Amino acid sequence: MKTTGLVVEYNPFHNGHQYHLTESKQKTGAEIVIAVMSGSFLQRGEPALTDKWTRTKMALMGGCDLVVELPFAYAVQHASIFARGAVALLDKLGAQSVVFGSEDGNIERFKDTNRLLKEKKEEFDHFVQEGLQEGFSYPRASSYAYSRVAPGNFEGVDLSEPNNILGLQYCEAAEELGGRITPMTITREQSGYHDTTLGTGSIASATGIRRTLFSDDANPEDIRPFVPLSTYTCLQEYKERRGCFHSWDDYFPFLRHKLITESAHELSSLYEMEEGLEHRFKKALHAARDFETFISYIKTKRYTRTRLQRAMVHMLMNTKKDWYHKEADPLKPEYIRLLGMSDAGQKYLSSIKKKLEIPLVSNASKGTHPLFTKDIEAAAVHSLPFAADQDKEDLLNEYSRTPFRYSKTGGTFL
Amino acid sequence: MKTTGLVVEYNPFHNGHQYHLTESKQKTGAEIVIAVMSGSFLQRGEPALTDKWTRTKMALMGGCDLVVELPFAYAVQHASIFARGAVALLDKLGAQSVVFGSEDGNIERFKDTNRLLKEKKEEFDHFVQEGLQEGFSYPRASSYAYSRVAPGNFEGVDLSEPNNILGLQYCEAAEELGGRITPMTITREQSGYHDTTLGTGSIASATGIRRTLFSDDANPEDIRPFVPLSTYTCLQEYKERRGCFHSWDDYFPFLRHKLITESAHELSSLYEMEEGLEHRFKKALHAARDFETFISYIKTKRYTRTRLQRAMVHMLMNTKKDWYHKEADPLKPEYIRLLGMSDAGQKYLSSIKKKLEIPLVSNASKGTHPLFTKDIEAAAVHSLPFAADQDKEDLLNEYSRTPFRYSKTGGTFL
Repeated sequence: MKTTGLVVEYNPFHNGHQYHLTESKQKTGAEIVIAVMSGSFLQRGEPALTDKWTRTKMALMGGCDLVVELPFAYAVQHASIFARGAVALLDKLGAQSVVFGSEDGNIERFKDTNRLLKEKKEEFDHFVQEGLQEGFSYPRASSYAYSRVAPGNFEGVDLSEPNNILGLQYCEAAEELGGRITPMTITREQSGYHDTTLGTGSIASATGIRRTLFSDDANPEDIRPFVPLSTYTCLQEYKERRGCFHSWDDYFPFLRHKLITESAHELSSLYEMEEGLEHRFKKALHAARDFETFISYIKTKRYTRTRLQRAMVHMLMNTKKDWYHKEADPLKPEYIRLLGMSDAGQKYLSSIKKKLEIPLVSNASKGTHPLFTKDIEAAAVHSLPFAADQDKEDLLNEYSRTPFRYSKTGGTFL
Repeated sequence: MKTTGLVVEYNPFHNGHQYHLTESKQKTGAEIVIAVMSGSFLQRGEPALTDKWTRTKMALMGGCDLVVELPFAYAVQHASIFARGAVALLDKLGAQSVVFGSEDGNIERFKDTNRLLKEKKEEFDHFVQEGLQEGFSYPRASSYAYSRVAPGNFEGVDLSEPNNILGLQYCEAAEELGGRITPMTITREQSGYHDTTLGTGSIASATGIRRTLFSDDANPEDIRPFVPLSTYTCLQEYKERRGCFHSWDDYFPFLRHKLITESAHELSSLYEMEEGLEHRFKKALHAARDFETFISYIKTKRYTRTRLQRAMVHMLMNTKKDWYHKEADPLKPEYIRLLGMSDAGQKYLSSIKKKLEIPLVSNASKGTHPLFTKDIEAAAVHSLPFAADQDKEDLLNEYSRTPFRYSKTGGTFL
């Protein structure tokens, strides 16, 4: 059965994602679409807008057949780990391709670029260092180094675009996994990654949609043109049940608590707490009462927002340096956490079950892997600000959850 | 100048405290009353109802001349450390007496009891162990041991009353400090320590008053007969400014966060986390969504509510076993944190300033002692749930605070 894979966050699922999904099926001729999705916290170091179950529902209603969780240990990471963790899971699940959206849209240029960067690695790294010493941000230093090592007639991808960077890593991961899974790309039909406004047309960035959802004076109807009806309904339901969506503001008190009560020495044992960053965090604490002020106080060209946010998620999750180094090889996943499936997805799973090399975990209470435990903890931390508002479905308890099953007659929890 | 000392928590200052204060002045003939007050967290392991500044204000308006802070390291402790820390501070400040309220009311009986318990220490400890093995709670095991070692005609104090236990420790502390400070006691004119209702008359327990303040359907007017007008006004103001009073419910999410993200091994390094208590806490986490359910799940005869609550405050404050053992000798305070003074208190301070053996810290930014740092952290943690609601006075920032000064023409911040 033709099967393709997508690496997603769906925060939330919008028309751009819908386009990507439809195009991917068409381009690959796949009958089955598998989505590997970040769970409670996202690659750029942010809490997900809603819990992962609601985002799974959106994904299935949007047309995905299987939704599996990218473990926290690979999700809140720079592109190389994130991409390897995700592509390796797709590979284990038998996807023959991984299709990513990119600003570039030409897969050969990704491969050429990777080849060039590998050949000229030493030179490239040297110029990156030079750029950093000039005071450039890391992305800018990379672009600078790239311009220095690429021959004049070289046609590569633009390294200043974040989705191109991810794309390069997907291609590398596929190669490192032995080439069973083919990377493909389609041009992103949406506004720029960082766009914060909704714009016109039917495609807006997830950032723009989130801004609207969080803004005090915005009408929830404002996002309606940019998301499928299923997303709109899921978001409305979530907000009714939980009172609000999740943003860094909700977790900032927990960070403050940790920064107040832990010594700089304790904080320095945390993953991504490098180069004395703990002192910068502690210092900023006295100056800032809200998350935005806090991060703007620490942010520099060297410490980008994304880098800081990721460090903060690891602080919130108490991820230790030694824990991460011990546990994680993103190319060798040891379990697959199933979040949801369509009827077709379920049939597909039955057909491959015997060939699966690693356990498929569909009941949380049966997972004992350290990375899996971390996923459960991430879900518990993610729901902390709303612990008091739990409803009867016990949204907060990962242990009572089984995969979401979606068929055309409506979704149910198995 | 005749000076007496009181050891207080004023949570909040009520008519029973007012009576104690007036009686103490009368009994000792003192012109100056010094109160050593717990700061942000209290002896029985609870967050104070309001910040320490508001409670300082109540104390001064109630007639205290000096209010100094009992360091966190001595405040959230069993009676022997709490009492030693407090009496030692009063001694350093030149108080000639310390007057405590007790169920008993006869100082000779306290001295006799201490003498007996010292003489028969071994025997007493043996019977306490016997009682504990019988499954008695610690207070009950003490009473049992006491009944076994006391001669038939012995007239001692009742060890099942918590204020008698504290009183015994005040007497011991005074003795250990060389006898410069004389312990005295007056009979408490109020309902029992644990009374949760307001009752009739003008005296109610602080517990009963707090229950009323936190209850959903109570009228704030209900506490009016039991507190001075000054307290009533201070509480009203506080509630208006902060939206509510502080209770364990507000800090429970922070405990949950720590229990979710820290390993049992990490938790075992915390002060008062003895005998594998960390495992009991972690286990209870899954069962309980609110503080009361949580504590009722862990509480046993052996792990009393007070013991558990103290362990939880130290968890919240990240107090480490080795930190406490290194830093603290309650009989040898190394600084005095001044929270407030009346006109008379200020004059008194000027008169003794030159003789003071340890620094008087009135500006937080000048304190560098490790115990003092902990006090500042305790205030920051105490204000965490309300961090977003700060007003212009910057209630949350200990560093910008100087002692409260109260004169009959009204209080001001110096």
